[in-house]
Amino acid sequence: MVKDQLESKLTEYYEEMVEIRRYLHQHPELSFEEVETPLYIAEYHKKLGHEVREKVGERGVVAKLHGGKPGPTIALRADFDALPMQDEKDVPYKSTVPGKMHACGHDGHTATLLVLAKVLNELKDELTGTIVFIHQHAEEVAPGGAQAMIADGCLDGVEAIYGTHLWATTPLGSIEYTEGALMAAADKFQIDIQGQGGHGAQPHYTKDAILIGSQIVQSIQHIVSRSIDPMEAGVVSVGAFEAVNAYNIIADTAKITGTARSFSEEVRQTMEDRLGQIVSNVAASYGAEATCTYTRGYSALINHAKEAQLIAELAKSIDDTKQVTLSKPQMGGEDFAYYLENVRGAFFFTGAMDPEADFAYPHHHPRFDFDERAMLHASKVLGNVVLKEVGVL
Amino acid sequence: MVKDQLESKLTEYYEEMVEIRRYLHQHPELSFEEVETPLYIAEYHKKLGHEVREKVGERGVVAKLHGGKPGPTIALRADFDALPMQDEKDVPYKSTVPGKMHACGHDGHTATLLVLAKVLNELKDELTGTIVFIHQHAEEVAPGGAQAMIADGCLDGVEAIYGTHLWATTPLGSIEYTEGALMAAADKFQIDIQGQGGHGAQPHYTKDAILIGSQIVQSIQHIVSRSIDPMEAGVVSVGAFEAVNAYNIIADTAKITGTARSFSEEVRQTMEDRLGQIVSNVAASYGAEATCTYTRGYSALINHAKEAQLIAELAKSIDDTKQVTLSKPQMGGEDFAYYLENVRGAFFFTGAMDPEADFAYPHHHPRFDFDERAMLHASKVLGNVVLKEVGVL
Amino acid sequence: MVKDQLESKLTEYYEEMVEIRRYLHQHPELSFEEVETPLYIAEYHKKLGHEVREKVGERGVVAKLHGGKPGPTIALRADFDALPMQDEKDVPYKSTVPGKMHACGHDGHTATLLVLAKVLNELKDELTGTIVFIHQHAEEVAPGGAQAMIADGCLDGVEAIYGTHLWATTPLGSIEYTEGALMAAADKFQIDIQGQGGHGAQPHYTKDAILIGSQIVQSIQHIVSRSIDPMEAGVVSVGAFEAVNAYNIIADTAKITGTARSFSEEVRQTMEDRLGQIVSNVAASYGAEATCTYTRGYSALINHAKEAQLIAELAKSIDDTKQVTLSKPQMGGEDFAYYLENVRGAFFFTGAMDPEADFAYPHHHPRFDFDERAMLHASKVLGNVVLKEVGVL
Amino acid sequence: MVKDQLESKLTEYYEEMVEIRRYLHQHPELSFEEVETPLYIAEYHKKLGHEVREKVGERGVVAKLHGGKPGPTIALRADFDALPMQDEKDVPYKSTVPGKMHACGHDGHTATLLVLAKVLNELKDELTGTIVFIHQHAEEVAPGGAQAMIADGCLDGVEAIYGTHLWATTPLGSIEYTEGALMAAADKFQIDIQGQGGHGAQPHYTKDAILIGSQIVQSIQHIVSRSIDPMEAGVVSVGAFEAVNAYNIIADTAKITGTARSFSEEVRQTMEDRLGQIVSNVAASYGAEATCTYTRGYSALINHAKEAQLIAELAKSIDDTKQVTLSKPQMGGEDFAYYLENVRGAFFFTGAMDPEADFAYPHHHPRFDFDERAMLHASKVLGNVVLKEVGVL
Repeated sequence: MVKDQLESKLTEYYEEMVEIRRYLHQHPELSFEEVETPLYIAEYHKKLGHEVREKVGERGVVAKLHGGKPGPTIALRADFDALPMQDEKDVPYKSTVPGKMHACGHDGHTATLLVLAKVLNELKDELTGTIVFIHQHAEEVAPGGAQAMIADGCLDGVEAIYGTHLWATTPLGSIEYTEGALMAAADKFQIDIQGQGGHGAQPHYTKDAILIGSQIVQSIQHIVSRSIDPMEAGVVSVGAFEAVNAYNIIADTAKITGTARSFSEEVRQTMEDRLGQIVSNVAASYGAEATCTYTRGYSALINHAKEAQLIAELAKSIDDTKQVTLSKPQMGGEDFAYYLENVRGAFFFTGAMDPEADFAYPHHHPRFDFDERAMLHASKVLGNVVLKEVGVL
Repeated sequence: MVKDQLESKLTEYYEEMVEIRRYLHQHPELSFEEVETPLYIAEYHKKLGHEVREKVGERGVVAKLHGGKPGPTIALRADFDALPMQDEKDVPYKSTVPGKMHACGHDGHTATLLVLAKVLNELKDELTGTIVFIHQHAEEVAPGGAQAMIADGCLDGVEAIYGTHLWATTPLGSIEYTEGALMAAADKFQIDIQGQGGHGAQPHYTKDAILIGSQIVQSIQHIVSRSIDPMEAGVVSVGAFEAVNAYNIIADTAKITGTARSFSEEVRQTMEDRLGQIVSNVAASYGAEATCTYTRGYSALINHAKEAQLIAELAKSIDDTKQVTLSKPQMGGEDFAYYLENVRGAFFFTGAMDPEADFAYPHHHPRFDFDERAMLHASKVLGNVVLKEVGVL
Repeated sequence: MVKDQLESKLTEYYEEMVEIRRYLHQHPELSFEEVETPLYIAEYHKKLGHEVREKVGERGVVAKLHGGKPGPTIALRADFDALPMQDEKDVPYKSTVPGKMHACGHDGHTATLLVLAKVLNELKDELTGTIVFIHQHAEEVAPGGAQAMIADGCLDGVEAIYGTHLWATTPLGSIEYTEGALMAAADKFQIDIQGQGGHGAQPHYTKDAILIGSQIVQSIQHIVSRSIDPMEAGVVSVGAFEAVNAYNIIADTAKITGTARSFSEEVRQTMEDRLGQIVSNVAASYGAEATCTYTRGYSALINHAKEAQLIAELAKSIDDTKQVTLSKPQMGGEDFAYYLENVRGAFFFTGAMDPEADFAYPHHHPRFDFDERAMLHASKVLGNVVLKEVGVL
Repeated sequence: MVKDQLESKLTEYYEEMVEIRRYLHQHPELSFEEVETPLYIAEYHKKLGHEVREKVGERGVVAKLHGGKPGPTIALRADFDALPMQDEKDVPYKSTVPGKMHACGHDGHTATLLVLAKVLNELKDELTGTIVFIHQHAEEVAPGGAQAMIADGCLDGVEAIYGTHLWATTPLGSIEYTEGALMAAADKFQIDIQGQGGHGAQPHYTKDAILIGSQIVQSIQHIVSRSIDPMEAGVVSVGAFEAVNAYNIIADTAKITGTARSFSEEVRQTMEDRLGQIVSNVAASYGAEATCTYTRGYSALINHAKEAQLIAELAKSIDDTKQVTLSKPQMGGEDFAYYLENVRGAFFFTGAMDPEADFAYPHHHPRFDFDERAMLHASKVLGNVVLKEVGVL
């Protein structure tokens, strides 16, 4: 009965969800630079009369809704940062900020959570316990906002936490989850090569930093193919190669940055060790020097089994759900991992690909977009989970 | 007698030469952006009463000094552009413009020619014929200023032309020349790779433009070592590798620029052909596409033998000269080449390394500098060549 | 009761098992060259009075033991070929044949099965049904002996089949199994590069086949790291690089052979496609030609779930068993796969590492050996499975 | 007059020259394995009544012809070893020995010298002084036969020495020489990689020696293109890559051999140093070990200027000569270099390409052959040089 109310109210407010998402989509803010977005979020909750704490962990927002009766404290989390990319979509709601774009769907996460908060608020007399809405900044860039918000108390008193990621390449209607590892440890590395610059016509007086760097790029691909157990998952990807000089000058230095992903400590350590070994020795093979700075990012996200099963069970109870899949882990990192190191809970993927399309741009692509109906679906799953956790279902 | 006057006057004005050079050194202007430098040069010649044409070939300056009696028209040329580098020297006269620097000695060439013009002006009654001072912009960047200035008439009526390059890694007192090829054909290439971008954790949906580019960088080094006759000279150098993304995004595109140097058409064509072959096929080996745009730069600089011998002979007649060397060709390009395709003449190197130092930074290095006494030496050689050519020696 | 008899008889004949194994170890025969080994095996079964068919599928041996009462027909399989490696162990029973060696434990499989046959023979009055002992040649080299033996009728009338592989790097006492994929599809590729040979001092007249080959070797490692979903398993390994000329001759041709492993058709096809793409395009980048011949080897070995569970259950019932593990799939190929495509059954690993050692050489290593007590363990598991399948347990 | 006799007799015996050459061509012997060839040579000289010393420097033959009158002692040298290659020509006189072939023309050198010896013998009454015929073994493989023969006295009393190399890619009628450096220092290197072998499906337990080796092959090409002054000549070529295992075994070791060529000590040392630096560091980048053994081969061959001019002058006096060219140095090594370190003399190239063909296979190619008329031409030049040196021209 309260379940029906919840779902029909969410459906009723779907247009608002879209409006909020599109507003945010046009006004992206980069990780650790978020100013207007948290103000917008806080304002929304304040209007609902929620207890709001701003600048949690520096830029996050935590809002609390107290149900009509005592009960457990359950948290929901949505992230709200954007990416340093140029929006290349041709839609009315495209980013208005050059070089910044919501290319990962965090605008959708926020819209979902805000409207769900509004609906739960309308049902608050029926509710027991407390619902905590954690709006997190800076999910995209390590060290991320989660750890800072936790340190700043956002989980105080919380018993369990849930969250979702809209997934643009999975069809609308799908819910994907795991009962253990869901997302990888996501680390960053930076390689700095110190060669010896000079004139392009006199290579014998130089140590060519670009040539050294390009050999390193080639060689580190061998870490995954040669040094990691084929039955284990690992990724080493270079994202940037920077050595920008006049065309006729041999580079003095080059900078290479990238990411390494893994699910186990053994693979993680192998990647770090082998990167260091390759970088210093390849540089030495040219008489040059290079260093690799390896920065551990988010831990692997490990769902709690019972909470994951709860999501699956409730997702199946919703009409919008077409299928619930026990999926494979994903290589992407997520600092939701840290909440799950502190309290029980689970994270899942909500399919957000137009079921009539036969192609969708992946996350972090300049033409990324998603089927907005996925927000409604996600809000129903999360809303049901809350109802169940607080005991009114 | 006029030779003695010339040399003693040059020695007397050496301090002014240094002042001019240091002023220009502090105020570098990049190729094709020169505004203040040509104004400064034109002003200097105007004060001497020379006939001055500005904006020749867009930014060059041509000044004429008419001797007291009729005679041949002889040109001297100095270039005046700087490089896009940060001056890292620690001297009072270091560049005042961030990211710009006279790292090739063109400031010295200009100071040498201006003071030589002043001295020749003071001797003008003794002179026959006409001396043309060609102050050329944009030597560092193809297509260079020489061709435009020639097209704009700077060689009209000129019978022969001479010029020099101060050389910071050759000891003061040395004059180096050849009787044929002195400097290489200097071409530029740009490689554009179109991969397919995506998330760093999902390489299987991408075509990694940085990986493709790094393999191209490795492979094009094999052109020189495998495809060119070991008895012939050739250089292929990459100067820039640009693929700047977030560390966790796989690059959609990468841009690589570089230079190719040669002395013969066969080697030049081999380099161009092999670059194209490598670039397209390596990209295809990853299912991606890439193009190589090869832009021919300056032709090889070929001295006229008799004029080169004249330089050697007169250089030996000067006290400052410690040695005259018939040198090997240099791989660096010089658009002085084009003057020599139009009129007879020759180009030489003037040693500019402090003879007491045991090390000097090469040209195009952020710590490049030269021994300023080389300007005096150069001015004496060029002055004597003029006197000889116009018939007063 | 029959279980006790079986196990105590096997223990009693352990010394014979060791003798047989060591005899075979000293007399290895390569895949598809087996002559003496199948004679030896056939002789053993004949002495036991079994019905023996020789040269099954050309070199295999099939022996049948009829139990005292009617019942199902159950097969056990052991392979008996060796590898083209030099035995570098220092043991009395080391290989007596230069360049040939039982470096994968097939000698142990055979000894296990022969002695188990002897024991079952002694218990034949208690047995129902028929036991088929399939001694297979040529497991190491595709197309393997299994398909030929099946085509030649070795599975006729067989209801279920079981087999094991002794595993030298897993401790004695362990039984490892899966309920699905156990071993990978194992394919072979051969790359033939046609360059243009010539004198080492005149590279510009050549197309250096070794240089081209080495770039291909580097590049095909990127298939696994870039073109395969990190959550899927795949391996591409080069085993041989052959280009043997005088040191001062540039190679005309080079030959590279290797293996590719996978568990899914999608990964398998990606590896084949990418190999072809890399090989032809890298060669083209040097103006040369190369082909990749990809030969599909054994299919992935997929256990039947119920039969796998039977192994686990019975393994636990044996004192020698220290632990039973539901393991990860292995990348190695096994043509036992084909039996399981025809009849129900399962395959498992029997730990054969000395539990007191802290290191063991892996399979296919020139110093490979195993703890012979594993044969006893394996024979007890297989024996029990047979008893259960024929209905006397 | 004696010149005319010499030339017409040589022309007369041309058929014999061809017969000898073809006989030797069918019976090639490898360097340091020559047995029958020196016997054949010695026999020929003995029949002429020459003073013959066999097994000079172990396998060489030295024959002396004393002229009718006293005079200077002048040596001529021809080498006689073959190469370890399969003859792929389709001619009646192709090699009869599998895997061995005269692919460098030493058979022709020997035939030339033998017939010239016969003719000079017939003219001996006209001759003054002594002619020494040095038939040298093992030119193709360092340390070569020259040094051993010199140590064994072959130059004792010799005043000057001359020799030639037939050159299959230069047209018949051409004589090429230099007045200084003619051929390069020719060194050998061997790279031994110690990885860690294992099963192809378990790369994470291995250190892949073939992958390491292929990266070394790629990287050492950068020595020439990056570490050597583009105005200097240098070559680094790999000739063999040996790592032959079963296709599904990852290589424990790999062996790479090659050659390095240079004309200056600086370039030679740079190549040796950089090879070592690359080999050890690239191996270390994979946690493996590798060594480079660099063996200096023949020194650069430096002609004596006056003697070189003598060759040019006399070559021009012969009708067969179409052109005499002051050529560029060649990268190939020649241990004739050592004779010229001991006595004055010169070495030259005799064009041996069919002037009507538009293509010829290069030396060391399995289809190598040459125009036999070049032998006649070479014999006339060498004969004239002898006449001139002993004073009868």
